[in-house]
Parts: sequence; C-alpha cells; structure tokens
Amino acid sequence: MKKVVKFGGSSLANAEQFRKVGEIIRSEESRRYVVPSAPGKRFDGDTKVTDMLYACYAAAEAGEEFSGKLQAIKERFREIIQGLSLDLSLDREFEQIAADFSAHAGKEYAASRGEFLNGKVMAAYLGYEFVDASEVIRFDKNGVLEAEKTNKLLGKRLAKCEKAVIPGFYGAEDSGKVRTFSRGGSDVTGSLVAKAIMADLYENWTDVSGFLVTDPRIVENPAVIENITYRELRELSYMGATVLHEEAIFPVRKEGIPINIRNTNHPEDKGTFIVESTCRKPKYTITGIAGKKGFCSINIEKSMMNSEIGFGRKVLQVFEDQGISFEHIPSGIDTLTVYVHQDEFEEKEQQVIAGIHRAVSPDFVEMESDLALIAVVGRGMKSTRGTAGRIFSALAHANVNVKMIDQGSSELNIIIGVENRDFETAIKAIYDIFVLTQM
Amino acid sequence: MKKVVKFGGSSLANAEQFRKVGEIIRSEESRRYVVPSAPGKRFDGDTKVTDMLYACYAAAEAGEEFSGKLQAIKERFREIIQGLSLDLSLDREFEQIAADFSAHAGKEYAASRGEFLNGKVMAAYLGYEFVDASEVIRFDKNGVLEAEKTNKLLGKRLAKCEKAVIPGFYGAEDSGKVRTFSRGGSDVTGSLVAKAIMADLYENWTDVSGFLVTDPRIVENPAVIENITYRELRELSYMGATVLHEEAIFPVRKEGIPINIRNTNHPEDKGTFIVESTCRKPKYTITGIAGKKGFCSINIEKSMMNSEIGFGRKVLQVFEDQGISFEHIPSGIDTLTVYVHQDEFEEKEQQVIAGIHRAVSPDFVEMESDLALIAVVGRGMKSTRGTAGRIFSALAHANVNVKMIDQGSSELNIIIGVENRDFETAIKAIYDIFVLTQM
Repeated sequence: MKKVVKFGGSSLANAEQFRKVGEIIRSEESRRYVVPSAPGKRFDGDTKVTDMLYACYAAAEAGEEFSGKLQAIKERFREIIQGLSLDLSLDREFEQIAADFSAHAGKEYAASRGEFLNGKVMAAYLGYEFVDASEVIRFDKNGVLEAEKTNKLLGKRLAKCEKAVIPGFYGAEDSGKVRTFSRGGSDVTGSLVAKAIMADLYENWTDVSGFLVTDPRIVENPAVIENITYRELRELSYMGATVLHEEAIFPVRKEGIPINIRNTNHPEDKGTFIVESTCRKPKYTITGIAGKKGFCSINIEKSMMNSEIGFGRKVLQVFEDQGISFEHIPSGIDTLTVYVHQDEFEEKEQQVIAGIHRAVSPDFVEMESDLALIAVVGRGMKSTRGTAGRIFSALAHANVNVKMIDQGSSELNIIIGVENRDFETAIKAIYDIFVLTQM
Repeated sequence: MKKVVKFGGSSLANAEQFRKVGEIIRSEESRRYVVPSAPGKRFDGDTKVTDMLYACYAAAEAGEEFSGKLQAIKERFREIIQGLSLDLSLDREFEQIAADFSAHAGKEYAASRGEFLNGKVMAAYLGYEFVDASEVIRFDKNGVLEAEKTNKLLGKRLAKCEKAVIPGFYGAEDSGKVRTFSRGGSDVTGSLVAKAIMADLYENWTDVSGFLVTDPRIVENPAVIENITYRELRELSYMGATVLHEEAIFPVRKEGIPINIRNTNHPEDKGTFIVESTCRKPKYTITGIAGKKGFCSINIEKSMMNSEIGFGRKVLQVFEDQGISFEHIPSGIDTLTVYVHQDEFEEKEQQVIAGIHRAVSPDFVEMESDLALIAVVGRGMKSTRGTAGRIFSALAHANVNVKMIDQGSSELNIIIGVENRDFETAIKAIYDIFVLTQM
C-alpha cells in the first residue's frame, strides 16, 4: 500500500500544524511520499510565505535592500523548527537564496523557495529523504510541464526511496532554471508523484473536510460530498467551485488513482473521495451545485431559422471572428440565444451585433446582461426521475425567474440561467430541496 | 366593417353545408368577400372534388377516355345546384374544361377547377359578383406568388365590388397559365384578399371550433384556444400542429388583421382569434402543446470544449457540409448535443461522425435515435413562475424520461426531448396539469 500525501499551506503554517501533520503521517505506514506546500497564514491577516517571497524578490529585482524581508521569512521557518525542537539549520539555504535573489534568478525561482525550504523542514521532522523537485519535475522552455519526462524521472528517483518528501509547486527546465505551476500547483505535484509511483491513493490534506455540495459563502455549513467522480468534479470546478488545482486531475485520473480530500484539523473526518467511477449511490440525488455570475445573452430571432442550413454556424462564426467563446446556445423555435462572458463580450458588443445582422439578417436581436449560470451536477440525476421538476418547483417557490434552461443528452447536469441578483437565492433553494429535505 | 370569409371543403361538401354557409354569410352584412374551397368529403370514404379532378386529368394526360370521370365531377356540382334550387348551368364551363384537359392544360389548371366551379355556384347562390382568381392572384414563371402585384390587382378589382366571391387555391401567371398554392392554399387566398381590401377580420370557417390546445389524436376533446398570437401559432405549427396553411399568416400579420377560426357546423362557437398581440391573458398558462417524432441526437464530449474558441462553429460546419439542418444544440459542461431529423441524418451518419472527429477531435461521440421533441408554447409562461417546475413534475409523475430541455431567452416556449415511445404520454401529462387542473 502506497499513499501520496500532500499538505496545503494552512496545514503547515506553524509548528502546531506541523505536529498534526506528523501525527497523521505516522499513523499510517503507507503514507510514504509527502508533498508539502509553503507555510500559509497562521491567522487572519497573516501573510503567506510565498507572498513574502514575491515581495522580497521584487525588492531585490528593483535593486533595493531586501535582507530585512528575507530575514522575516527566515524567522517564519525558525519559529517552526524551534517549535518542533528540530536540530536543523537553514543558514546555508538562505545564503544561497540571498545570492540568487541578488543575481535576479527569477520570480518563479523566488516563489518556489517556500516549498523548497518547507520540504527541508518536513524531511528533517519526519526523517524522510528530501528529493528536490527541480531534479524530478521537468518543464520545457515555455514553462509547460513535460509530463512524460517528469513521470520517468520521478519514477526512477522514487524507486530508490522508501520514504521521501518532494516539495510541491515547482520543478525546473533541463537547464536547471526553476519553473512553477500556477497558484495551488502543489496539488499537481502530488498528482504527478502519485502517478509516477502508481500510488493506491492520493491524499490531499487541506483545511476543509472535503468537497462541499455548494459554496459555503452562499449556504451556511453545506454538506460534504462523500464520493464524487472526476467528471462531476470537473463540471463543478468549471462552474467556479474550487478545492483542487484543475491540472491535478489529469495525471491520476488516467491511472484510476482516487484522490481523498481530507482535513488536517479534523483527521477523523473521512473527507471526499474523487474517483473515476463508482457504483456507490450519491447520498443526495445531486452531487453539487456551482455557478458563476457575469454572463450576457444575445437573443436572435428569425422566422424559419431552423430550416436555414448554416444559420447556427454563421452566428457562431461571428463570435469566433471576434475571439469570443460561447458558453451555451439554447434555442426555441425561430430563436437562438448565445450566452457569453460579459467581460469578454462588452467591448466587442457592437461588432458582434453588426456581424450578426450582416451574417444572417435576423428579424430581431436583443441583449440581456448581468445574468448568472448555475450548474446542478450529479450522476444520481440520470436514475432519479423528477429532478428537473423539483429544481424548477423550488426555484418558482423562491420567486426566482428562470431565464434559461439547458440539459443535453449527458443528463449529468442541468444548466440554469438566472439574473445575477437571484443567484444566491437560486442556489440556496436548490440546496434546500435536495439536501435539507434529504432526498 | 369588412370581413373576408373563407370556407373549407367540408363546409361546402353538399347543398346542406352550402345552406349553413349561406346563413352564416347572410347573418352579417360585413361578410362581403367570400373565398370558397372546392367541395370536400360528404362522408367518410368519399372523395374530394380536387382529388377527382387530379384523377380525371391524369387519365386525360395518359390519352385515356376521361368523360366518365368528368361527368362524375359534374354530378357533384349538379347535386349542390339542385339542392339549392339554383337557376345555374355549368355546361359551358364543363365543355371548356373537357377541351382544356384534352389539350393537356396542366395539372395545376386541373386542380384549380374545383374552386373555380364552386366559386361560380357560391356567387349564384349568394348573388355576389364572381371574380376569377386567375385575374387577381399573380404567380411568376416559377410558380412563386408575386405578392406585390397580387395585392395591387386584388385591391383595384375589389374596389369596384361591394360583394364578391373569389375562388381559393389558385391564380395565374401573366400569360394566363393557371398556378396553384400547395394543398390547403385557399387559406392563403383568403389572407391575400383580406390584406388587399384591408379587412377588419379574416374569418376562416372550417369543421373544428378553433385551434386546439393539443392534438385530438393524443388527447380526447382537447380545449379550444380562445386567443393565440401569430407567433405562438407559428411555433405550434412548426412543431406539427396544423389548421391553417403556413403561408396564410404572413399577409395578414403584417397588416395586423386578426384571423378568426370558426366552425361552420357550430357557428355559435366563438372559435379562435389569431392576433398580432393581445393583452388578454390566455385562459391557461400555456397556449398549446405540439410535437414531432423522429429526431436523432449526436452527443459530443470533449474536456475543456467551452474554452476552445470555434468549437461549436466547427461542429455545425460539419452538419452544414452534409446539408443537414439542426433543430437544437443543448449543451452542458464539456458536452454539446445536436438534435437533427432522423430521416435527414441517417444516410449521412457516418460522414458526419467522421467529420466531427476530424474537425474537433472529441473525447467521445454518442448517438441516440427515435427521439421526439415537444414544444410547450405560451405567452402566459413568462409571467407565471413555476411553469417549468410543473411541466417536469408532471413528466416525472408520468414516468417520462426527459432526455433534453431547452429554453432560450424568449421564455415563450420550452422544448423537451423524450423518447418516441413516451411522446403521447408526455403530451397527455402536460395537457392534464395545465388544462384539466384549470391553472
């Protein structure tokens, strides 16, 4: 049994959090490969080490004095090392960093040092081998991950380690130049490690007890999703739900390795299992609800449009020519509506309208802005009749005006368009009907 | 007050029906312009005069003896004339027809003689002037109506008549060659006359008491729609509901002339008013339900498709290249479904699938056939919350599996995809919830 365990920044913010992590790792022999983030916030208003590093490097790059800023970072690590009573010095590492910052080693290099140093601390604390991510995670010259090469390097290197700490978030080009993933990229590192060693499970430890049915900023204490498929996760993530870095899904998904989202502060909670597929029925009919505001609809009317071959294609061509991607194209009889992102659309609005008039001579074009899209996602919906009825009855009951409905053949999600101002009300209403009434 | 009154074939099938029509016309001074069809079926299994004419002309064209067939037609008219005790002989007209048939005057000419002769009878019966449609309804050499020219000719000619009978269904080219509309084209004639004389109302007398909420072959004795807008009618007609010839809408719609569908056998019924717009609330939330079977869905899945500019356009291009028009394109996240007519699609299926693979490299393409689309149409839906909820609850209750939902910004209709075998059940369920429960 081999598990890869990744810990987020809040799980490693100070010595107290480190001790929780140590207990978690030691409680199971199989937790052999550890991917740490950089220390996060210890309290509200605190600064993450990564942000301290960015600020410090910005000073260095501007030719300003940065030793004070670097000292503050060192202090964060000293506090952890001392709190854990470790016999570890990072003096040499900080000297190197100071030299590299003076030599303008790059913003990505700077950002990566939080994980690098935290990995050193973690390795010393656990007694695991430290494997520098620069040696095993490979990027090309454009900063794009080289997945194949990385997999080989990681597999070969870790085959020699019984237990290892691999810092998250970064890697390097062939030349040794450090490169990073986008924010939250330690999730990707964990996923790459899991794939390379063919882990049985990839545990992703955070400060929440799993993936929530909906946004806790909208619904108080939403239920935790026990099992979610990669596909459902992808759909909810696309619509704005975030826990995991999007690119973290692909490496493990291909190998059928499940991800378990866990809470470092509540290790007794089982968290969420993200799996390729499962015959386990979801607890509720729906798996999750997510949504985004800020859409705009362009409603095109033309008598007999359905029999006009090429009508839809010509309309979409207009959007494409302006570099605008569409979200949905619900249609009625003699009407076609195109949903786009308001911010992308606004500045090209007049060109698009003119283009539509030229391309298809519509009877009528009308626009509406400040719309939100909500996705109700769930593999359980396919086998449960009446889901749509319950959703729309709940929305009617909550006085929400439904502007658009879209459900394709997948039957795994229903997309609902509402006005921005009805967004929260709509999500609450759907949550209540499926989760609070426990059906 | 000027009304144009058009009577369908069943309203003029025999002398008894003619007398009903006469009573209707004489009961209102304003019914000044009459458009008759050819005599229809007198009983189940009877043959319409138009079909007798087609058969007779086919014999003439093949060089066969056709005088017996023509005599049978003459007998139909003799029966009416005698039943009405009219002092009218059609001998001269039938001699001319026999001569023209022998000279192979054309199928459209042949078909038109039913209306021509019936117009003569009607004019004699009412004491109205007979205006031959050949003189006032103009077609071009391709058999396409010349709307402008027709409007001028009709307007000028009828300005001179206080009361006139204008036979439906046909007109002529400049050369005098007779041309006809497609089947049911007397509706179009009535509409053209109404526009030309700027009628206050166009009464279309048939054998039903108006436009029905849904298909009487599916729901027994469906309710009559009291008021329907042109747009709602167009939507229901597009989805298969038929009462009026589709092209009959355009001339009067532009002029804001309402159409009143009436029942010759029940003149006390108010029938259906078809209007451009109305502030009269519909009796039920929905105005009508119509649908068609025989669709096919092509479901395309590709991760991240929404952020791929041009994705939808490329997919539709493939269909366009094969000459296939689509009906709807519902989409989810990472999925796009294209609904097409099964008969159009089947023979090109493999080319389309190959084309999609080449054009957008999907992760997955899946097809489903034997699907039906149902349109629930109603201007009342926009102002009534919960319509969607009630529809989908009713469908769930009836155990109908909803394969697709599409509602664009117009909010005047919701399109629902179901399996062919659930088609009737679904329509019944929707009818029951909105009409039988009277809400």
